[in-house]
Amino acid sequence: MRMYDIIEKKKHGEELSREEIFTMIGQYVSGQIPDYQISAWLMAVWFNGMSDRETFELTEAMALSGDSVDLSEFGSKSVDKHSTGGVGDKTTMIVAPIVATAGGTVAKMSGRGLGHTGGTIDKLESFPGFRTSLSPKEFTDQVRRCGLAVIGQSADLAPADKKLYALRDVTATVDSIPLIASSVMSKKLAAGSRSIVLDVKCGSGAFMRTPELAYELADTMVKIGTAHGRQTAAVITNMDIPLGHAIGNALEVCEAIEVLKGGGPDDLREVCLTLSSTMIELSLNVSSAEADALVGDALQSGRAFDKFCEWIQAQGGDVSYAKDTSRFGSAAYSTDIIADTDGYISSCNAEAIGTSAMMLGAGRQTADSVIDPRAGILLFKKPSERILCGDVIARLFTEKEQTLASASEHFRNALTFTDTPPAKQPLIYRIIRSR
Amino acid sequence: MRMYDIIEKKKHGEELSREEIFTMIGQYVSGQIPDYQISAWLMAVWFNGMSDRETFELTEAMALSGDSVDLSEFGSKSVDKHSTGGVGDKTTMIVAPIVATAGGTVAKMSGRGLGHTGGTIDKLESFPGFRTSLSPKEFTDQVRRCGLAVIGQSADLAPADKKLYALRDVTATVDSIPLIASSVMSKKLAAGSRSIVLDVKCGSGAFMRTPELAYELADTMVKIGTAHGRQTAAVITNMDIPLGHAIGNALEVCEAIEVLKGGGPDDLREVCLTLSSTMIELSLNVSSAEADALVGDALQSGRAFDKFCEWIQAQGGDVSYAKDTSRFGSAAYSTDIIADTDGYISSCNAEAIGTSAMMLGAGRQTADSVIDPRAGILLFKKPSERILCGDVIARLFTEKEQTLASASEHFRNALTFTDTPPAKQPLIYRIIRSR
Repeated sequence: MRMYDIIEKKKHGEELSREEIFTMIGQYVSGQIPDYQISAWLMAVWFNGMSDRETFELTEAMALSGDSVDLSEFGSKSVDKHSTGGVGDKTTMIVAPIVATAGGTVAKMSGRGLGHTGGTIDKLESFPGFRTSLSPKEFTDQVRRCGLAVIGQSADLAPADKKLYALRDVTATVDSIPLIASSVMSKKLAAGSRSIVLDVKCGSGAFMRTPELAYELADTMVKIGTAHGRQTAAVITNMDIPLGHAIGNALEVCEAIEVLKGGGPDDLREVCLTLSSTMIELSLNVSSAEADALVGDALQSGRAFDKFCEWIQAQGGDVSYAKDTSRFGSAAYSTDIIADTDGYISSCNAEAIGTSAMMLGAGRQTADSVIDPRAGILLFKKPSERILCGDVIARLFTEKEQTLASASEHFRNALTFTDTPPAKQPLIYRIIRSR
Repeated sequence: MRMYDIIEKKKHGEELSREEIFTMIGQYVSGQIPDYQISAWLMAVWFNGMSDRETFELTEAMALSGDSVDLSEFGSKSVDKHSTGGVGDKTTMIVAPIVATAGGTVAKMSGRGLGHTGGTIDKLESFPGFRTSLSPKEFTDQVRRCGLAVIGQSADLAPADKKLYALRDVTATVDSIPLIASSVMSKKLAAGSRSIVLDVKCGSGAFMRTPELAYELADTMVKIGTAHGRQTAAVITNMDIPLGHAIGNALEVCEAIEVLKGGGPDDLREVCLTLSSTMIELSLNVSSAEADALVGDALQSGRAFDKFCEWIQAQGGDVSYAKDTSRFGSAAYSTDIIADTDGYISSCNAEAIGTSAMMLGAGRQTADSVIDPRAGILLFKKPSERILCGDVIARLFTEKEQTLASASEHFRNALTFTDTPPAKQPLIYRIIRSR
């Protein structure tokens, strides 16, 4: 079997065999197949796609290319969540303690962010002392004790995916549904949870721009998980505008805490309730109504917030910040975006707002950029809210005064205005479950 | 301008600008753009093609990436010929002396063969002493004196094409018409002749399997040549069965000499007359009828054969072999392929026959294989000839006795038989000229 023939087959739209897929991934990871052959194959996949079977097997080959986390001691209760990424997405910090409160087990690895805003790990590091890397024993001990741990992703988890993703990133082959789906799911399979809930974002701030594309990706990922014996569900959510009001690491932590205390913005709250409920349904094998009740109880009783504090403390974070969020302090510089006319925001480009937050210091421009936890944006007005001339639409925070002007301009350009209220968009498009 | 964006544009079927094409080729040759990005781009070109303008500019960028040969002192008379490659193709050795006899100037670089049988340079080396590498001054002096020189291709001619071709060869991106056309024509432009005649082969022994594909390739190459101010024509010829009877280096030299002496197989003779006449039309700017008359005269007068001898001698070859071809001698081992039934050959896979010749030692299995000049095949019977049981269909020659059995089997498998005469195929499909 030669890589040349594998490229040739895919170029002509033929299906690869299991042996071809496993040999290709194995030899790529070991360095026997060069990048230039894999990139030609990736481009052929971009054009011709992959069958379900090929996608399942590519995922499996990548999942088996490195270490796997053994969560078998937690039986069917272990449940993972993955978001395809958006602007202002702080859901993990909310749903993980809710699910753990209800009796699920959340033993999760999470990524750092590149571009836009930070990842969950970056957000959690807003707590002084929070440890994002635990030894396997510390990790399992904490999960046993607390029902919950979130650490940075190990380099040995699905190394084939890591290598392939780096190549896709420089060869314009990222935007292929079978490649995205297999990349996400290979890490989820290796991470060991028996159930997986996917938050597939769609809209201007997400990778999938339309509900149709998001559905296709979600469906592929659910099929992959199911084929590999995992209970899998996907929730397709709107990311045309940022989720909640806060964008930026410590700002988002504060907003997550508001939700855990029973408040917070409606959109963020609704997405988190749906995700938590779906995670509980799968991991505890209860009905949707029972899961909703468990979520409601976790929040109203205050136990979800207590669980959050227990978790932060268990990983070394200074929990006094959770109990008094004013301790996070405010960034050195800020500026307000003021409405210069009456009306409504007709659209708000979430990606451009994310870039504006990155310019302020909330995200990484390059892999070695340092994140300023307090940099970011508070969005006071969102589409469908009536705005009067002089209203504060948003406030921008930064530690680097010189970025304020360009970030403000970038932010303003992300908005368009209208006289009449814009049509309200759905927040949750659809939920797909394993069949 | 980033290579990433160039890949992305081509992936979405957009046209690249002249600046993008030249920058890409320049940075690829200088090593600033890695192979893995170029191979993704090549695969995107395989799927989406290139516009005529892109193809012209890619050709130009590759032609300008290295040295150019200056043939301006020969005015409009310099004329080059290129064959897209086939089995038993010895036309250059025949047409070059005919055209030089008629007054054209043939200052040509030619390749070595990889696979099948040798290239023209390998065939010419059957003459003891023949020098395939001349200094630029020796080359020009000989062209001035003799009207004709054929040397191996300089490594500095279109190095971008050399690098791209090597990458295409291992990434399954060879079979793209704009890439093939720009590759061939970049070398032809750099090689300096004012007129170019292309012999585009089609059929089982050629890269283009159908007349339609061959026409598309020919048309693209003629357009490229014309766009760059060269008089260009293409002759589309049949390569479903090998051309002539001889396959293998010294065997082909002997057959070429037969044609130059006024004999030789009809098919080979007809293709050579058409190519020579077209080359003369373009380089001497005469009518088709005048060109045909010049070709006829060159052959009948014996002056074309004299020119051949002058040429071989000028490049150091032992011309006594041309005058007495028995001096080439015969390979140490041979075997006959005997018909075991009456009938006709219904088809004869030229590519498989080429492979059989390679197994015997007439071609290279790898770049460093050594060719046996006397190895090869004489094909006594071709489709449409009546065969009787016991007739000798072909004779196989080799210096390596152990290859005879497998090469014979491979040869036999290349033939199919029938009771009734097969339909006669056209030998020359079409001639396309600059407009």
